[in-house]
Amino acid sequence: MVKIAEIEAALGRIKTTIHRTPILTNSTVDSLAGRQLFFKAENLQKTGSFKARGALNAVSKLGDEISAVCCDSSGNHGQALSWAAKSVGKTCHVAVPKGAPMVKVAAIENYGGLVHFCEPNDAGREAKRNELVEKYGAKMIHPSQDFDVIVGQGTIGLELIEQFEEQPLDAIIIPVGGGGLISGIATALRASWPEVKIIAAEPVEVDDCAVSMEKGDLVVTEKNDTVCDGVRTNVGKNTWPMIKELVDEVITVDDISVAKAWKLIMERMKTVAEPTGALALAVALSRSFNESYPRDQFPRVGVILCGGNLDLSVVPQMLKLADC
Amino acid sequence: MVKIAEIEAALGRIKTTIHRTPILTNSTVDSLAGRQLFFKAENLQKTGSFKARGALNAVSKLGDEISAVCCDSSGNHGQALSWAAKSVGKTCHVAVPKGAPMVKVAAIENYGGLVHFCEPNDAGREAKRNELVEKYGAKMIHPSQDFDVIVGQGTIGLELIEQFEEQPLDAIIIPVGGGGLISGIATALRASWPEVKIIAAEPVEVDDCAVSMEKGDLVVTEKNDTVCDGVRTNVGKNTWPMIKELVDEVITVDDISVAKAWKLIMERMKTVAEPTGALALAVALSRSFNESYPRDQFPRVGVILCGGNLDLSVVPQMLKLADC
Repeated sequence: MVKIAEIEAALGRIKTTIHRTPILTNSTVDSLAGRQLFFKAENLQKTGSFKARGALNAVSKLGDEISAVCCDSSGNHGQALSWAAKSVGKTCHVAVPKGAPMVKVAAIENYGGLVHFCEPNDAGREAKRNELVEKYGAKMIHPSQDFDVIVGQGTIGLELIEQFEEQPLDAIIIPVGGGGLISGIATALRASWPEVKIIAAEPVEVDDCAVSMEKGDLVVTEKNDTVCDGVRTNVGKNTWPMIKELVDEVITVDDISVAKAWKLIMERMKTVAEPTGALALAVALSRSFNESYPRDQFPRVGVILCGGNLDLSVVPQMLKLADC
Repeated sequence: MVKIAEIEAALGRIKTTIHRTPILTNSTVDSLAGRQLFFKAENLQKTGSFKARGALNAVSKLGDEISAVCCDSSGNHGQALSWAAKSVGKTCHVAVPKGAPMVKVAAIENYGGLVHFCEPNDAGREAKRNELVEKYGAKMIHPSQDFDVIVGQGTIGLELIEQFEEQPLDAIIIPVGGGGLISGIATALRASWPEVKIIAAEPVEVDDCAVSMEKGDLVVTEKNDTVCDGVRTNVGKNTWPMIKELVDEVITVDDISVAKAWKLIMERMKTVAEPTGALALAVALSRSFNESYPRDQFPRVGVILCGGNLDLSVVPQMLKLADC
């Protein structure tokens, strides 16, 4: 479990380097939702996703005796950690599975990260991680289970409390993959907004968090077949206790709903979202959400738009799904 | 020629309905440009383009005796005029060539416009326009040559003067098609910023404005083969005198440069641009611009991001061009 005071300290640590991202609204989307939606635009965050917050907090806490960090994420965490390490004068080593898209490799290198290719399987990744730790003395920074990372993501919650100082939100919808984002935000929000409903948004194709909540116990699945590449992972043992305690409900949506929500964001809001960035909006527009949280009782809902690192080559696939 | 006082009156008329669009900046794009670029985000304007300004100003000036307007634009002007007419309680008839993309037809209808299909050629469009004027008593509102439209687009210039009150821009790059946008902005800016360099951005594939400037006389061409569908038109007789007097230079760029600039806007700035929306950035990054306007003498440059109505189905074509 993380403490609100740690999140407050993290915000003090990182706020001059990260963006205080804006709240976006759109009248067309509101009329479709039948209520007011407030988008926390983490797609406009440094490195294009909220991951910059946690990564920067984690590297900022390291002492001078540690000169390098590492991870095995070729996605947003890998980019964010590369950027964060560079900004504090440390080196970042990233294990990348052979065959990963060159655009991701280029992004990591662009932010100053050093790419190390590994076999594209769990054993290969683990071996490479261990090698990076041993060979370079690099500290492994886990994308969702590292407590300093969780605390960093929680700074979004503190910003929301400031941005909605006059009137708190009635509910907030937050994507869940490993659970770092939602654990951090939920911890920050609960302290100031005891009444807010905190909803986890998860692809039905990778529904480990929903299954875990139903069983009341952490369940691990092998499922990863979703367009939401940012959440193709299980909730972990560090984040699960916080999710179990602080999250009101997990609502799942299918890829078609995500693609339709993504198209709305692109066409109506004119802001660039990656597929996972549309997950929370898809939940806001879902029948499940509307049945559980009626519009008249929950008129003001926050939606975390978690990332904008859209691989433009997936646009045709998203359009095809959206037209289903 | 339009007068600054008319533009000021237009801003008073429309400012409670349109958005005062923000100025976007991006450090990565700045480092590529070698100077500070300030994007006037008209992609975030009502209806997704600057056309909302001119259309709203034009319909707002009509008396009660005129209950309908018409145009033959199936693009941004058709959408903007439909929206503007509805907002003042009038009807908008739009002549649309048979075979136009259904997404455009849907957009016009979505804003409340009435679609009338015509033969997809100049004669068919003209015949339909005349029919709409006669049958419905509709006033034709030209997308670029109507003086009230030009005056409305000029309100962007007044906003820029306010937004850069502390320090004027050194230069500004504005797309040119029919010339309404650049005529309006140039008129507004020249009054307050006598020193600013005003550059027209034009696709080399449709370079009528560049040819006209070189000859010192209005030249009409048949060229329209560019991805920048917003400027597939010639400068007209009402806008040409203003362009000739107020614009310092026309710089042309090819579709490949536009596609590369478009990709930068999408990937780095995370804001949605249509192809024409990237035209001014393509010029800012061009060798011609950098030779004529050295970075040290012109460190602060405005870029008009004119529209965000991206047809997502053109993304693969844009990527293919960008990778050339």
